[in-house]
Amino acid sequence: MTENGMGTHVVTQIAVVVKDMDKAIEAYSRIFGLPKPDVMLTDPTNAHATYRGVPTNAQAKLAFFHLGDQVDLELIEPVVGDSVWQEVLDKKGEGVHHIAFQIKGTDGVTDFLDRNGIPTIQQGQYTGGMYTYVDSEPQLGVMLELLENFDQDA
Amino acid sequence: MTENGMGTHVVTQIAVVVKDMDKAIEAYSRIFGLPKPDVMLTDPTNAHATYRGVPTNAQAKLAFFHLGDQVDLELIEPVVGDSVWQEVLDKKGEGVHHIAFQIKGTDGVTDFLDRNGIPTIQQGQYTGGMYTYVDSEPQLGVMLELLENFDQDA
Repeated sequence: MTENGMGTHVVTQIAVVVKDMDKAIEAYSRIFGLPKPDVMLTDPTNAHATYRGVPTNAQAKLAFFHLGDQVDLELIEPVVGDSVWQEVLDKKGEGVHHIAFQIKGTDGVTDFLDRNGIPTIQQGQYTGGMYTYVDSEPQLGVMLELLENFDQDA
Repeated sequence: MTENGMGTHVVTQIAVVVKDMDKAIEAYSRIFGLPKPDVMLTDPTNAHATYRGVPTNAQAKLAFFHLGDQVDLELIEPVVGDSVWQEVLDKKGEGVHHIAFQIKGTDGVTDFLDRNGIPTIQQGQYTGGMYTYVDSEPQLGVMLELLENFDQDA
């Protein structure tokens, strides 16, 4: 057992990047017998996102299937702008994009990961929280996403 | 809502294929603060495995980290023989190999998937059960594994 700089090991999302959201939703719904979820469009104006250190107006379509109580399957279709979503789709085609974890204290976790050779790739905000993608693939074989929901009472 | 030919939508494993099991275990243990798991070697003699319809003596090292109560992270290092593990490593390098589901009635599920354009790639046995990998990547962006544990009372 070592220091747990992540503060958690409970995975909450498996994300798949796709070219055609409607087609992917149709396939997941048919194979798993699940209702078709709504498609959300990320808000590039309020995301204040940076991709590889540079501000970006990147936008994506998102949809979520609940694969049990712990884990959601997230579908991501990049729409516009430079992003790690488009980067992965261009480099590797459709496939698993990342696995996500709910964390507390993004700066502390990204410092820990940096010290372990895992730099931040993209960071941005969503309503009520922020997300961070880190370049863990060389060490772990998969990208991690850190999700931090801001304390409502803070 | 459609027919659920899978019989479940609860994901139980995220598997990553790696070149060097010891190195991968070291990295996961360090980043997530988890104890190092034992490494298991699959038993090719009793697996009675077939890969793309042909019997194979494929063997792999396996290790599991619990990422919460629902989901394990499985590391796979192919050792010898033709297998979907070696195939994915050769084609795409280290990365997510599949996500797994505990099912009942493998034949019924593989029939349903076949009818939906998702053929079986590899099938074999382990102590107390059997596994099936199916070619769902073109439709879902990720390979599925079906795990069926045999009823102890049957």
